[in-house]
Order: sequence, then structure tokens, then C-alpha cells
Amino acid sequence: MEQVTVGIDIGGTNTVFGIVNENGNVLSEIKFSTKGHKNIHQYIEKLSLSIKDALSELNKNFKLKGIGIGAPNGNFYKGTIEYAANLDWKGVIPFVKMLKENFNVPVFITNDANAGALGEKIYGGAKNINDFIFITLGTGLGSGIISNGKLLLGHDGFAGEIGHTNAIPHGRLCGCGKKGCLETYASASGLVKTAVEFLEKYEEDSLLRQIKDFSSKDIYKAALKKDRVALKVFDFTAKILGISLADSVAYLSPEVIFLFGGLANAGKLLLKPVKNYMEENLLEVYKNKVQIKMSELDGNNAAILGASALVLQQINK
Amino acid sequence: MEQVTVGIDIGGTNTVFGIVNENGNVLSEIKFSTKGHKNIHQYIEKLSLSIKDALSELNKNFKLKGIGIGAPNGNFYKGTIEYAANLDWKGVIPFVKMLKENFNVPVFITNDANAGALGEKIYGGAKNINDFIFITLGTGLGSGIISNGKLLLGHDGFAGEIGHTNAIPHGRLCGCGKKGCLETYASASGLVKTAVEFLEKYEEDSLLRQIKDFSSKDIYKAALKKDRVALKVFDFTAKILGISLADSVAYLSPEVIFLFGGLANAGKLLLKPVKNYMEENLLEVYKNKVQIKMSELDGNNAAILGASALVLQQINK
Repeated sequence: MEQVTVGIDIGGTNTVFGIVNENGNVLSEIKFSTKGHKNIHQYIEKLSLSIKDALSELNKNFKLKGIGIGAPNGNFYKGTIEYAANLDWKGVIPFVKMLKENFNVPVFITNDANAGALGEKIYGGAKNINDFIFITLGTGLGSGIISNGKLLLGHDGFAGEIGHTNAIPHGRLCGCGKKGCLETYASASGLVKTAVEFLEKYEEDSLLRQIKDFSSKDIYKAALKKDRVALKVFDFTAKILGISLADSVAYLSPEVIFLFGGLANAGKLLLKPVKNYMEENLLEVYKNKVQIKMSELDGNNAAILGASALVLQQINK
Repeated sequence: MEQVTVGIDIGGTNTVFGIVNENGNVLSEIKFSTKGHKNIHQYIEKLSLSIKDALSELNKNFKLKGIGIGAPNGNFYKGTIEYAANLDWKGVIPFVKMLKENFNVPVFITNDANAGALGEKIYGGAKNINDFIFITLGTGLGSGIISNGKLLLGHDGFAGEIGHTNAIPHGRLCGCGKKGCLETYASASGLVKTAVEFLEKYEEDSLLRQIKDFSSKDIYKAALKKDRVALKVFDFTAKILGISLADSVAYLSPEVIFLFGGLANAGKLLLKPVKNYMEENLLEVYKNKVQIKMSELDGNNAAILGASALVLQQINK
């Protein structure tokens, strides 16, 4: 009998879940809007029915081992979602408890970047790596830390917020209310902000001057065409990220730092300079020991696989 | 029969070891110069004979459970001391292997701040705390991280170098060769550097102007007398340390941050402002959750107790 897990990714816009088999294949995938539900109870009902439907449509015998959830501000220890800025439900939601009323299997929750880190460990490029950092470079910068083979959660379950460490004292205002957070520079939105600043600062011609409201992808395309402003934007971003990652190494001494997400796909434009800037800023004892790699998680299923991995890590430990 | 451990603290100047019983009492303590031995073999011979002498002088029956060592750049995984700048032995010294030739008990090594963290856990204020950071504010800034009840060592055994994270971009030159490291500001020597800078920058009168080559202790005494420059020096130091500790919380989400060492003894002059600056720089989700406390380890025996704790943590795990 095949054993399956359900991995749920709750985003501000959409909820996506998948049924995952032991080999990390996503057998089916369902998506619905996170918004537009009268309250959390209706959302939980919708989610539970959708999962039951999807399971009943599997045309084989299976055993559901558990349900894993990746959600903004998901708290592993308490099973809650707490004060998530981009979700409609305010305050502290006892999400695991509510979902368990409909399913008689283990249910676990954590934040999306932590789930991603576990996905990398169970299904991706970190199968044999016990100390690594997983960094998602999307609109913001999320991070999950695996230390000694396990998710580093800290005292209260909220450890691993590298995106909100101090990159530039008194720097850009962050969505969190602080100034100079790493994610205001090293993220897709940070890249755009840097480009806007550089277009004002430098008088050079640039392909970007012809595009109204350009995106990080436009900056990437311009950089590939050797647009000098765009190249400077990537170099600046790589420098800030590289210096911060040198700090991450001083804290955690990982074997690998995995980069994941839209911006990470800029590949050589980012990976190599980030590595160089990191090395320049490492203590002697860490030099030439830490790899920076692209995530090996399938970008399309990464969130589902990560949430699924949370179940496997907890059950098999 | 009483069970004892030997805790060894290897410093650049002196080597101190003690025989510690199960209650954390130091039954005897021996000190000799780390310098002046022809080579590492002679040092090991001297150390081994001293330990055997001290054990034979215990006037009761005992069982030696193991030997723990705290040393600069001590590597737990490999049992080595690697490229320690302030020791005479160059390169990689297989210290544990060499000492084990003279003792038929488990022998462990780590760096001094890690040993301090374990000392806090086994004998000090962290007996029931599983996620905390231990920071020594001496000439430099050392740190040991306990995560999930265990020493966080990272991939290569060298994790936890918070003193060498980037506090001020392009800031003061550090002994490690990098610029702007936290320990160039938040340490006894950093305090003196700040005072020298401030005396040039501000024209105010100050007690410090009357002292040639003043020490961090002189700055402390002047601050107690409400010397305005000295107070500014403490405030500046507290700010830099507080902001860095907010980053530490974002990485590790500890329950407590323990401060230890000469500068930590400045007590209220440092503790309260550090806490305030840290809180100002914390993400919402961490606010009012993390305590900053003075270490409860006896300063006179801390290094010995820490090294001894390394044995207990390994044997009892």
C-alpha cells in the first residue's frame, strides 16, 4: 500500500496543496483562493473538503501518513499562524488544532522557508547534508536553517529570519517597520529599488530607462545584454547578500547555502559574485569550505514538497 | 565513589586546570605557563604529569569520568587546535589524540566560549534553558550557541563566531583581518578605542583626559562618576551590541542571552541599554521574549567549569 502525505502551501493569494508519494512525486495538486472566505472556519472547511476529495480520487490504495503546512508565521511548536501580515485572519490562529478536527493523522505547520529547507533535505540537493541554510529570494528574503540534520526553530519556533537582519545601518525602510533589513536589498523588490536609485545616481544610458515600471526580470534581461546599470545593480545586490552570508557562516558554519526562487534563477549573474563577496568577508577558518548552490527543488512543487517533508521529518525522527 | 572530571583552560599566557566534582565544586586547581615549552610534546607531558599529580593528591576514592578542554580554535569534531593566533604551536595540533596517549578516559575539546556556554548550561543559569547564547565580553568578543539543548557546532565545528560578524560596514580593522567586526566595538579593547575616538571628537572635559593609556576599567569608573564622555562611550557600545544581538535573535530565537566577562561586569551601565537597543531592533514576533542576563557562572572558575561541562554533556547525552 502506498504511503502518501499532503503538503499545503498557504500564500496570501492562493492556497495550493498536493498529495505526495514516498519518492517525492506529486500525485495531484489543487489550488484555490486563500481570500474570500467568510472566516477561518469556512476556510478550514473548504481546505478539508478539497483534501478529502483529492484523496478519494486517487485510484489506488494508500495510507495517509500526515499533513504538513507551510504558512507565513507558521509556528511549529504551537501549531499556530500568528499575526501573518498578508493573510486575512488576524491574531493567533490555532490552525493545526482546527485541521485535526477533520483528519485523524499527524498535522504539522511551519513557515514557508522552513518548509523549503526541509524539502531540500528530504527531496532536493541536501539529502546527505546536515548543516545548511536555505534562502528564498522572491519578493522578500526568507530563510530556513538546518542544523545537525534538524530544523533550527529556536526557543519560540520563529528562528531563521535572516531577511530581517541588519544589512545597512539606517538603510531602506522594510515592510516589517525596521530599517536596513537584508530583504530590502537582496530580493526581487530590493533589486528594483536599487535600479531606480542607480538610474537617478548615474547618468549612463540604460535599457531600463525605456521601460515604465520595470520588474526584476527586466533588470535581469538588461544585465544579460550587458546593460551597465543593470550589471551594477546585480553587483551591488550580490555584495550586500555576500557580506550578510559571511555573517550567516560565522553564526552557523553551514556546509552549503542553497538559493531558491525567482531571483536565485538569475544564476551566474548572482551566484558567482555572491560567493566571491562572501569569501572576501569570511574568517580565515571558514574560507573555501562553504558552497553556494542553486536549490535542487523543483520550483513548481517546492512549497508542496517542503510541507510534505515536514511530516516525514517529524514521523521518521 | 566520587566521580570527577578534569577541566582544562588553555590560554595564550596561562594554562589552568581543575578537578571538578559532580556538584560543580572545583576540588583543586593548578596553573602553569602555556609558553616556554620546547614543543607541543613537552607541553603535553607537563600537562599530563600535572593532572596525574593533582589526581593522586585527592585524599579520597574517585573515578575520573573524562577530560574537557577549552582552547582557542579548539575543534570538537576533529579534536584539534587549528591555527590559534595566540598560541606557540602552529598549524593543526591533534591535541585530543596526544592527550589520550596518557589518559584512558574520554577527552573532548572545543573553543573557550563554547565551553563557557556548556558551563552555563550544566552549572550556571541555563540549567533548564535549551536555546541560549553565551557571550564573553573580554579583550575580544567570544560566543557559544546552545540550540535545542546542544552546542551548535556547524558543519566543521567552528560555528558561533558572533564577534566576527559585520557590525559597521568598512568599520574598524579587526585582528582577524576583516573590517567592522562586532568585537572591535563590543569588547574591552573596543571600549578603549571608542573612548579615544570620542575624546578627539568631542571637546568636553572628561576624567579620562587625565589618565595616560586608560583601560576599560577606567572608562567604567569614569562613567560611574557620570563623566559624560564615558557615558557616551557606554551608550555607543551598547547600541552596537544591541543591534547585533537583534540579528542574533533573528538567526537563533534564543530564550536568554548571557553576558560574561570583564566588560559584562559593567552591569547596569551596559545590560539595560543593550536590552533597550536590542528590543528597538527586533522583529515584532520576537519583542519582549528574549532576556539578557549576566552569566551565573563563577568568573574565577568559569573556564574550568566550562571545559568540565563538555565532558558531562558528551557522556550523558
